[in-house]
Amino acid sequence: MKRLGILLSGRGSNFQAIADQIGAGALDARIAVVISSRTQAPGLEIAHRRGLNAVCLPSKNLEREVYDRQLADVLRDNQVDLVCLAGFMRLLSGWFVRQFPMRILNIHPSLLPAFPGLDAQHQALDHGVKIAGCTVHFVDENLDAGPIVLQAAVPVLDGDTVDSLSARILEQEHRIYSQAIRIVLEGKYRVEGRRVVRSPDTAY
Amino acid sequence: MKRLGILLSGRGSNFQAIADQIGAGALDARIAVVISSRTQAPGLEIAHRRGLNAVCLPSKNLEREVYDRQLADVLRDNQVDLVCLAGFMRLLSGWFVRQFPMRILNIHPSLLPAFPGLDAQHQALDHGVKIAGCTVHFVDENLDAGPIVLQAAVPVLDGDTVDSLSARILEQEHRIYSQAIRIVLEGKYRVEGRRVVRSPDTAY
Repeated sequence: MKRLGILLSGRGSNFQAIADQIGAGALDARIAVVISSRTQAPGLEIAHRRGLNAVCLPSKNLEREVYDRQLADVLRDNQVDLVCLAGFMRLLSGWFVRQFPMRILNIHPSLLPAFPGLDAQHQALDHGVKIAGCTVHFVDENLDAGPIVLQAAVPVLDGDTVDSLSARILEQEHRIYSQAIRIVLEGKYRVEGRRVVRSPDTAY
Repeated sequence: MKRLGILLSGRGSNFQAIADQIGAGALDARIAVVISSRTQAPGLEIAHRRGLNAVCLPSKNLEREVYDRQLADVLRDNQVDLVCLAGFMRLLSGWFVRQFPMRILNIHPSLLPAFPGLDAQHQALDHGVKIAGCTVHFVDENLDAGPIVLQAAVPVLDGDTVDSLSARILEQEHRIYSQAIRIVLEGKYRVEGRRVVRSPDTAY
């Protein structure tokens, strides 16, 4: 069974959705380790309660590459096949990305390439878009920029606040992240340029 | 009845969709004039056949503002309430835009702010997005940048070419352009920052 390493810094609601999908038998994988960059991350406590291997690896005051080497060590010790970022509030170094080529996924609350970076939902509302969404993508050395595995769209409503829009997007995040993990773990895709194309024998 | 001025340079399939909606009684407006920047535009011939006031105003070799003044004259002579770009392959000057403030609409085949400019569908495929779409927006002095009235999303499929994706998007263009014109003509909206917000008494 394929082994996931989850990196988080907060409550990790996407982590919980992935764990739920695994628990329901909808995703054939095991969470080998949950690593938090913050001591106080609620996601760490939730991982404990679920009986998962939860590791606190505080990033505070550490240089990027020093931290990233510790992170890579823990992931390797746990023989992780795929690294999933779930609200991990740290940029990963090029060195780290090269240790796990096309083996790191992230989810971002916008239809990339629109609104990369922080506060994507706020950016979307300020811009006045009528369609927002989320994106699961491979992590490369640039911010929110790697090849896209899946996206989902949601409407922006006239009365939306950052909270109401974020909640609508989050529902889709929880749905497509596990779906994207399944695609990548099954390996039935190829990358052409920036396009992630599924193999013909898989249903869409 | 409100009067539309349509600007095109090619076949103007969005112009035809608007004319069809008016013909079907779904859009309460009249096409006062269709202006083409190219002598050979098929949209001009189609306008003639539909018995519309079709004006050929070739832009070739004319400086932007000289041309834009001719354009504004024809639109004013026809007492146009709203200017609709439908494949008009010319940038409009700041002067022109200021003559018709928040009275010019354009449709663009991407979910702006992603993929402005030429060949938006090609840009989207190259970028590997999984959701594409189209945007109706007010025209301001920047390229594909004014406040957004409506957007529609479509999936990008693994086997898509520029042609197949463009056709899927075009279907949505034909649907939302008339819808956006109706919103603007009815005037039941306000612009807050960049957000176009519909008045509470209108159905979405």
